[in-house]
Amino acid sequence: MRILIVNPNTTASMTKKVGEAARAAASATTEILAANPVAGPESIEGYYDEAFSVPGLIGEMQLRPDMDAYIIACFDDTGLEAARCMTDAPVIGIGEAAFHMASMLAHRFGVVTTLQRSIPAIENNLVKYGLASRCSKVRAADVAVLDLEGRNEVALGKITDRIVESLEQDGAEAIVLGCAGMADLARSLSDKFNVPVLDGVACAVKLAEALAGMGLKTSKQRAYAAPISKRYS
Amino acid sequence: MRILIVNPNTTASMTKKVGEAARAAASATTEILAANPVAGPESIEGYYDEAFSVPGLIGEMQLRPDMDAYIIACFDDTGLEAARCMTDAPVIGIGEAAFHMASMLAHRFGVVTTLQRSIPAIENNLVKYGLASRCSKVRAADVAVLDLEGRNEVALGKITDRIVESLEQDGAEAIVLGCAGMADLARSLSDKFNVPVLDGVACAVKLAEALAGMGLKTSKQRAYAAPISKRYS
Amino acid sequence: MRILIVNPNTTASMTKKVGEAARAAASATTEILAANPVAGPESIEGYYDEAFSVPGLIGEMQLRPDMDAYIIACFDDTGLEAARCMTDAPVIGIGEAAFHMASMLAHRFGVVTTLQRSIPAIENNLVKYGLASRCSKVRAADVAVLDLEGRNEVALGKITDRIVESLEQDGAEAIVLGCAGMADLARSLSDKFNVPVLDGVACAVKLAEALAGMGLKTSKQRAYAAPISKRYS
Amino acid sequence: MRILIVNPNTTASMTKKVGEAARAAASATTEILAANPVAGPESIEGYYDEAFSVPGLIGEMQLRPDMDAYIIACFDDTGLEAARCMTDAPVIGIGEAAFHMASMLAHRFGVVTTLQRSIPAIENNLVKYGLASRCSKVRAADVAVLDLEGRNEVALGKITDRIVESLEQDGAEAIVLGCAGMADLARSLSDKFNVPVLDGVACAVKLAEALAGMGLKTSKQRAYAAPISKRYS
Amino acid sequence: MRILIVNPNTTASMTKKVGEAARAAASATTEILAANPVAGPESIEGYYDEAFSVPGLIGEMQLRPDMDAYIIACFDDTGLEAARCMTDAPVIGIGEAAFHMASMLAHRFGVVTTLQRSIPAIENNLVKYGLASRCSKVRAADVAVLDLEGRNEVALGKITDRIVESLEQDGAEAIVLGCAGMADLARSLSDKFNVPVLDGVACAVKLAEALAGMGLKTSKQRAYAAPISKRYS
Amino acid sequence: MRILIVNPNTTASMTKKVGEAARAAASATTEILAANPVAGPESIEGYYDEAFSVPGLIGEMQLRPDMDAYIIACFDDTGLEAARCMTDAPVIGIGEAAFHMASMLAHRFGVVTTLQRSIPAIENNLVKYGLASRCSKVRAADVAVLDLEGRNEVALGKITDRIVESLEQDGAEAIVLGCAGMADLARSLSDKFNVPVLDGVACAVKLAEALAGMGLKTSKQRAYAAPISKRYS
Repeated sequence: MRILIVNPNTTASMTKKVGEAARAAASATTEILAANPVAGPESIEGYYDEAFSVPGLIGEMQLRPDMDAYIIACFDDTGLEAARCMTDAPVIGIGEAAFHMASMLAHRFGVVTTLQRSIPAIENNLVKYGLASRCSKVRAADVAVLDLEGRNEVALGKITDRIVESLEQDGAEAIVLGCAGMADLARSLSDKFNVPVLDGVACAVKLAEALAGMGLKTSKQRAYAAPISKRYS
Repeated sequence: MRILIVNPNTTASMTKKVGEAARAAASATTEILAANPVAGPESIEGYYDEAFSVPGLIGEMQLRPDMDAYIIACFDDTGLEAARCMTDAPVIGIGEAAFHMASMLAHRFGVVTTLQRSIPAIENNLVKYGLASRCSKVRAADVAVLDLEGRNEVALGKITDRIVESLEQDGAEAIVLGCAGMADLARSLSDKFNVPVLDGVACAVKLAEALAGMGLKTSKQRAYAAPISKRYS
Repeated sequence: MRILIVNPNTTASMTKKVGEAARAAASATTEILAANPVAGPESIEGYYDEAFSVPGLIGEMQLRPDMDAYIIACFDDTGLEAARCMTDAPVIGIGEAAFHMASMLAHRFGVVTTLQRSIPAIENNLVKYGLASRCSKVRAADVAVLDLEGRNEVALGKITDRIVESLEQDGAEAIVLGCAGMADLARSLSDKFNVPVLDGVACAVKLAEALAGMGLKTSKQRAYAAPISKRYS
Repeated sequence: MRILIVNPNTTASMTKKVGEAARAAASATTEILAANPVAGPESIEGYYDEAFSVPGLIGEMQLRPDMDAYIIACFDDTGLEAARCMTDAPVIGIGEAAFHMASMLAHRFGVVTTLQRSIPAIENNLVKYGLASRCSKVRAADVAVLDLEGRNEVALGKITDRIVESLEQDGAEAIVLGCAGMADLARSLSDKFNVPVLDGVACAVKLAEALAGMGLKTSKQRAYAAPISKRYS
Repeated sequence: MRILIVNPNTTASMTKKVGEAARAAASATTEILAANPVAGPESIEGYYDEAFSVPGLIGEMQLRPDMDAYIIACFDDTGLEAARCMTDAPVIGIGEAAFHMASMLAHRFGVVTTLQRSIPAIENNLVKYGLASRCSKVRAADVAVLDLEGRNEVALGKITDRIVESLEQDGAEAIVLGCAGMADLARSLSDKFNVPVLDGVACAVKLAEALAGMGLKTSKQRAYAAPISKRYS
Repeated sequence: MRILIVNPNTTASMTKKVGEAARAAASATTEILAANPVAGPESIEGYYDEAFSVPGLIGEMQLRPDMDAYIIACFDDTGLEAARCMTDAPVIGIGEAAFHMASMLAHRFGVVTTLQRSIPAIENNLVKYGLASRCSKVRAADVAVLDLEGRNEVALGKITDRIVESLEQDGAEAIVLGCAGMADLARSLSDKFNVPVLDGVACAVKLAEALAGMGLKTSKQRAYAAPISKRYS
């Protein structure tokens, strides 16, 4: 099975990290390809960056049309619906992947993301997916996406503080890490707090393998119907 | 006051029609500028087209940064959040404009849009805006956007049929026309059915004038904070 | 265009203030008439006062049946549905006006009202309008309506404190002032906090002008159907 | 125990019928007083009539301030919140009474009311009470309230048709009769359809006896706090 | 009238206390029978205990098939739907009873229960019943069920603290005590805080008397249809 | 990896069929064990049967405490929360599995289950999981669970009819088969209708492999905390 994971921003070091996290989660027989657009925002922190990364994201998918599944490696599931329109293979966002998985391990999960400005898009996604009632609260660590590249004790401390608040004040029973750049923290934080801490990249790889492994396809009825034209002037 | 209304698709005849509808609704002292991107989808029928029209839409706005307000003239409010990030002037989508206005004239409104495939994006918007409980049902007339250019009795008949169903079966008390290309039908359909029939273009013009007239700005806290960079490599 | 704004309580100084706020917001060609009932509660602080002010409110409207639109200048939108039944002109409540407007400027808005006892009616309205998910929290400043008549630094300080909490603790991105008596504070508070601060009186004037300007009428289907008799023994 | 049941319209024959239904439901030791205002609408069919009946309704309650509980005998629970503000005895609306009771006998209940125009107020109440998800659908029999005075086979036929639709098409498992004037039909319709058919008058009497019997009072915190003045100029 | 109240755990002292609370609430003509299973968990603190108590609970009901109504005396309404399938008499859970009653006395009620681990089941019930929007928050006193047997000042202090938080921080206007073992505290806490404090046992007795007194039965359509077999190998 | 799939009813032929479906979905390195209780209902059609199957279901799990994950093979996710309390391995219900998977392939999915009486439990689960807004409608084929054993053209015809209604009338874009006994129909129905048709058994196997493969555990905070005692007198 071959899965393309697209980091929709242009930061290659992040693509590399995401690819490694995906490979660590994948089955032995799964080949993971990781890519990012050559043009567009270097990190996605809010709706504006999101909008400008979608054409590049779709472009990367169109370069590799024969994949068994696709993953969008940005926690706000950038361009998810558009991507689903251009293929009948499953397309999974790392945000939704983590939300669905956490819902099967806990009554309520908390989300710890990067910046305050990223919270509304996550809240809107939770409402769209139906899972808002399963989320205790989305908290921001006040850490920029690119600050998560490389080892950063200050950032880790802030994330840890938000997890404590989520468990103690909000009634969270599991934690979803709200940024692709936090993928490498899940295991150690899970050990530290003794609750499930979910990284969306690993969740998405497993879900993509699962759906493709069952031979299930993205529905082409209504929402994700193929566009009349896939190329624009 | 100067308002830019952007038709996010590339069909100039539709831009012209939308511009005329906007001018018909505008106050005497308001100058309406109408524009469309030079590249991108020629009509927007679903999530894929939507994604590819946003950069062009934003580009048109960036060419005219000194407007008092902006309007996005596609009923699924294409790129609304991204557009709000790049300006502190009010930005109004024609879909939300019609939903909010209809909510002040009726307990429940029905929506009549073009194609089945356009329904999910509208439903998701209603949920995101909070107004899903105010909408009786979104119905599709099975008429493509571009079929609404020029006088088209078959299309009109289908739209009329959906309005009848909406009023008689769904309990709608007002009708929202779910496509910028239907702007010229609102008055005659309102007369025919003796209920409010709302065109989003006129509603958006009035709301843009209202917000700008009060000196109100798009909030720059959290959701619509200015992007760190407005230009990408 | 002529708009009647009814203050449903009997305090003439408040009617005067509300009328001035309305005139300040209105277009040059709009004539604002401001009225209040001669009998009934002198301020509306809860459901009981609300109920006793409705007949007087309707009475004021019936004295001026030829208006282009009507505004109800109490933040809990006293008697809104009943008022809509007696006219086909648009009728706007200042609460709903501010909620709808704020929804187009921010992902979430906070409400700062007068007394704790006024919160439930506002919460119920938000649920009824569908906009509860757009409101971060309704907070009370513990200031009575009539304490807002005249310059009152203590009251202003309490309102300011609630705004700070709303922005910092609740994630509000805009603030709605929850009392007609706060109309004169919106501009300065908006400047102070650099977020949109909305006064319902101005919002309602603009929305009334907008709806009437488009020739839109209150639906007479179902909810707001004309009563069989408009006069009772 | 003494309970006052107020029919908020002025039709004495309906008050008599409601009083009889209440007495039939009451315990042997409960004294039922039935009253109606001397002025106001002769039937309540929509929001306008509702508003004009509240002062008379409150007036009837104020004439008998020493009751153990109060019942409002109009299915849209006219003036319920206002009535709760003026007493610390329990106050029950016949609509809410039936909804709560039906929720303990069935997963979903259907409502059959009089006119289409009465549906929105009932729908809004269901949302306000939280019980909208428990109601399969509100259907109207197209029978006016006063048509239910006296034996009326045509009206009964229409009500029966709506019950059939409710059970067969909507998935209702119990039926709530949506008008005080249908109180005498519950038993025979329950026998006919072999499902619970609930009359709000009986439900409200039982709930009023229950709450008062436990010594429970209407909360005076926030929503139903006593008004500063109970008499207006 | 004869009502069986089943304590689904095996602690006889708690059954005795619950029976006494039920008798104190019942009418003079009502006979209360109290029972508990001979096998199963000795207290119910979470989903696991709940599951193992249901067969014993049903067994106790089957031993007394001729009751006019049944009450389940565990605050998470253990086995409520299953119990309704085996009888057409009304079956009331003490949790739902208190929620419905509190909804008629206050705009919002708070719940104070025993342990953190008991909160999710209560939250899920509130969502299922539709009443989540009526509950301000469920708080846990960190007191085990069996710690409530006998006079326990420490436990009482913790419960009192949670009530204070509920009223002051959450906006609760009434308090629901979230455990059958707290039945004897309602009156004194109500006096202490001057708000309605509801015990589910008394509420359930009153509702059971009310429903049975009206001759209303559990619906046998769909959800609570009689099982094909009531005895299993 | 070893996964135990428990059919909570006592029909061994169904257990065999479910086990085969699970093995067909599982990875080569996964060992599937299938079991059913020796005592309890022979099929689960409603809440009563559900309650009596849980102790046997838990008992089967306790006999094999060393599994990597557990699956509950009844579409109403019988005993799911209780099962999660007794292990820290992931526990997946086939209903939730199919709902979550369908949510990543389609905007809205329809459910086709066996009997009308099974609909309410499915509806309540959808609300509890948060996914009610993602489901267009739950329809019943009026086919008993055990009628699905062996080839049954009449049953297949009824299921097919409900799928047609779901796609054409309800706006479903994918179909979830609402009974473990329909596991063998998914592939052929998916081919027939050219939309995703999901069988919960396969979905649950894939999700169990995914969660266990990532080393994720059921949270032991709050909802699924280990019971104080796992054995009862």
